[in-house]
Amino acid sequence: MPQLGLLHGRAWTVFLGQLRRPPGAVCIRAVRSHSQVAEALFASQLKPQEKSNFIIKTPKGTRDLSPQQMVVREKILNVVVSCFKRHGAKGLDTPAFELKEILTEKYGEDSGLIYDLKDQGGELLSLRYDLTVPFARYLAMNKVKKMKRYHVGKVWRRESPTIVQGRYREFYQCDFDIAGQFDPMIPDAECLKIMCEILSELHLGDFLIKVNDRRILDGIFAVCGVPESKFHAICSSVDKLDKISWKDVRHEMVVKKGLAPEVADRIGDYVQCHGGISLVEQMFQDPRLSQNKQALEGLGDLKLLFEYLTVFGVAEKVSFDLSLARGLDYYTGVIYEALLLQTPVHAEEEPLNVGSVAAGGRYDGLVGMFDPRGHKVPCVGLSIGVERIFSIVEQRMKTFGEKIRTTETQVFVATPQKNFLQERLKLIAELWDAGIKAELMYKNNPKLLPQLQYCENMGIPLVVIIGEQELKEGVIKLRSVPSREEVAIKRENLVAEVQKRLSES
Amino acid sequence: MPQLGLLHGRAWTVFLGQLRRPPGAVCIRAVRSHSQVAEALFASQLKPQEKSNFIIKTPKGTRDLSPQQMVVREKILNVVVSCFKRHGAKGLDTPAFELKEILTEKYGEDSGLIYDLKDQGGELLSLRYDLTVPFARYLAMNKVKKMKRYHVGKVWRRESPTIVQGRYREFYQCDFDIAGQFDPMIPDAECLKIMCEILSELHLGDFLIKVNDRRILDGIFAVCGVPESKFHAICSSVDKLDKISWKDVRHEMVVKKGLAPEVADRIGDYVQCHGGISLVEQMFQDPRLSQNKQALEGLGDLKLLFEYLTVFGVAEKVSFDLSLARGLDYYTGVIYEALLLQTPVHAEEEPLNVGSVAAGGRYDGLVGMFDPRGHKVPCVGLSIGVERIFSIVEQRMKTFGEKIRTTETQVFVATPQKNFLQERLKLIAELWDAGIKAELMYKNNPKLLPQLQYCENMGIPLVVIIGEQELKEGVIKLRSVPSREEVAIKRENLVAEVQKRLSES
Repeated sequence: MPQLGLLHGRAWTVFLGQLRRPPGAVCIRAVRSHSQVAEALFASQLKPQEKSNFIIKTPKGTRDLSPQQMVVREKILNVVVSCFKRHGAKGLDTPAFELKEILTEKYGEDSGLIYDLKDQGGELLSLRYDLTVPFARYLAMNKVKKMKRYHVGKVWRRESPTIVQGRYREFYQCDFDIAGQFDPMIPDAECLKIMCEILSELHLGDFLIKVNDRRILDGIFAVCGVPESKFHAICSSVDKLDKISWKDVRHEMVVKKGLAPEVADRIGDYVQCHGGISLVEQMFQDPRLSQNKQALEGLGDLKLLFEYLTVFGVAEKVSFDLSLARGLDYYTGVIYEALLLQTPVHAEEEPLNVGSVAAGGRYDGLVGMFDPRGHKVPCVGLSIGVERIFSIVEQRMKTFGEKIRTTETQVFVATPQKNFLQERLKLIAELWDAGIKAELMYKNNPKLLPQLQYCENMGIPLVVIIGEQELKEGVIKLRSVPSREEVAIKRENLVAEVQKRLSES
Repeated sequence: MPQLGLLHGRAWTVFLGQLRRPPGAVCIRAVRSHSQVAEALFASQLKPQEKSNFIIKTPKGTRDLSPQQMVVREKILNVVVSCFKRHGAKGLDTPAFELKEILTEKYGEDSGLIYDLKDQGGELLSLRYDLTVPFARYLAMNKVKKMKRYHVGKVWRRESPTIVQGRYREFYQCDFDIAGQFDPMIPDAECLKIMCEILSELHLGDFLIKVNDRRILDGIFAVCGVPESKFHAICSSVDKLDKISWKDVRHEMVVKKGLAPEVADRIGDYVQCHGGISLVEQMFQDPRLSQNKQALEGLGDLKLLFEYLTVFGVAEKVSFDLSLARGLDYYTGVIYEALLLQTPVHAEEEPLNVGSVAAGGRYDGLVGMFDPRGHKVPCVGLSIGVERIFSIVEQRMKTFGEKIRTTETQVFVATPQKNFLQERLKLIAELWDAGIKAELMYKNNPKLLPQLQYCENMGIPLVVIIGEQELKEGVIKLRSVPSREEVAIKRENLVAEVQKRLSES
């Protein structure tokens, strides 16, 4: 317990702990009072103390990744990045923050979720909200007209975190984008192919990719009689159809956004449709929609897209869904979102609502917003929602009690006797210098059993043992941890013998 | 040029460009005025305009990493992380920001360089300043008493950036730390061994690691007659000895920090000494220093450290240097810093002053600062200054005109004829599905020459060619880019044949 002035300190700590201590957090002594503590003080009518407490924790909506989680994350990111590289993408990195101006007017209603940095003199800065706007800024700034890049990095959003669903205020994005003027829908089809490859390779169970086109949505709004000034507002209502019913969306359109009821009903006829390539054909025949130039362009592109997806062998994973709207302002053409159809994969698992696990679309105007002459660089891309995928994989491993190795150590250098530290250090340096992953106990005179126990616990496959006998005979003992078999080998053959053993296993 | 109201716009842009346009930056039109622009306006007495300009750039002291730079970075980080894993470290990740309170009173004079986030309601947050304090916070929060972890991540410091020397406001740190109560100097010696392994493996030329101990420094200050209240201030003066002369440091001590001249001179006798293990022995004999308990403890540990370093075969890389002080407040025992002895390695290169490339030390009190009962977890660790290493490697590659492949593409799918898009898409999907890295041109009817040219430029070794002839015969052509040899293979053997070729090369 912290020493905060006799009995009061203890009571205070207990009180605070009960009030708001998250799992794993502890209280510490600090000279300055923390805002949370100030709130708590106010609420409880206790007198502030000179040395008050604050909770030791990570900021709201963020978390540490433990070694176990890091291993899972590394595996997932490997799958993602390998796929991006398989498709010829180059790496790119941008700063965690951008000039505040770069981010303004890019995210529509979500702009309030941007983290700003404090004005400490100098430029006004904000933490990046996604990797797409920094990519567009990079292209414009360096006058790059053509680029296929991937970017794996953290982004920050001040959302109300619902951590159980894998939503955080700090999270990783894994983006793949193709910038440049190309023949229609070839890069777009590749983006969908990439989503399929990654989701299949991660074995997350069956999935479905919804596609739509902003121009089709705009066309629908136009032919249904939505005033152009309301396109954005109505689009964001439609975007809610995956969470709330059409009835509620319609209510929002009419009551909140002032749309005529008959206009809303006309929209309803469209946005409740979904299907495959045949729905595209059907919409081509639609008497109203076929009069709208924008919608026809969108439909034409979707038709081509389905053709290419068929060649790629992934068309059956993709559904044309007129309710898909996507929140962000910058999309201009095809948009898509991948959903897991059934988590859990296995009957024993708890169901987990993870929402969409990948999404993206075409944004042909964003780079032009940064270009002095408004020169456009058409772009299409995708983002893999790795945090949600982490949640699923973590939950699955918990369910199945899978054990993860958090180190890659191959050999442990042990001794059964006292005064063998220098010998062990000599041996381990040899192993390290040969590139072998090795550990020893940081003790002058460790007991043998805890050394061997450590190897079993950590999954280290080999032990090198040196003692008086071995030193005298110029040998060392090589012990297999799984079989517990030991053989003596010549001291000078140590590295070669260890490498041989490791290559066999 | 942006359209800012007839002639004024052009003049304004030119003016702004001259004023502060960094290389590669362009001006863009924006609705809101930027603070920099406001400054410029004020300075130039021009009237503000409704639509003003701001410079499109990355924030001061930050940069994008281009694909070329990413490849270099990835290679360097691979060497570093492989070494950390070789020594049995687990991975850990912490959020980019911490509660502001976590960071206060940890960094001494440098605390003013911490980036704070804007108070947008909720907790007060700061960007992490290093990876050490978050590690200590993690240990205390989770009551971890023993851990060997590495962490690679960005940290942020509001320093005056001098970019030529590889110093940025956003930069990567690569940290390795050993937490836990162990027998003395075994983990400390491993940290120095790790620094040697990494610096050797990166081929940066000869290097030297300076070591000292905070207890020895404190002992020196005590026996020389420095009042204890001035230990910190005098320590940070000593820290400047690698940049300014003893004369200037002495001047600072006496004039700025009010030390008696004879006390300063006594300090001078000590801190200008450096040497190997023999200097440790000499200091043991020193009539004044040998009276100081703290100093003796430090000397005893250094003696042991040199013993272990000798066993590890790296003692000749390490120098006991009494001028080494290290800026950070939290060190309590041995401290060290690695310097490159001679960049450039090659006579043709421009000399580049990069300062220290790795550093660290023992901090036994930091975790206790976060623990409610002040329970200590002794720690020792190191940080690799990868940004400076990037600068050196980049400069070297520039000097030698080394070309870097920015993609890993193995096969390009080409056609010499029109109307072969679908065939190409079918072929490339097969390659992707077999895990082969492949690209094609996003054109319906590309010409053959630019396709082959692209392969040469990008270093893609193999081309798969399909045309009318091949389609008719059920074959495809496999072309080696370096030798320009072409062979026809059966269409159904495509993947097997490509895999064979790739495994041979």
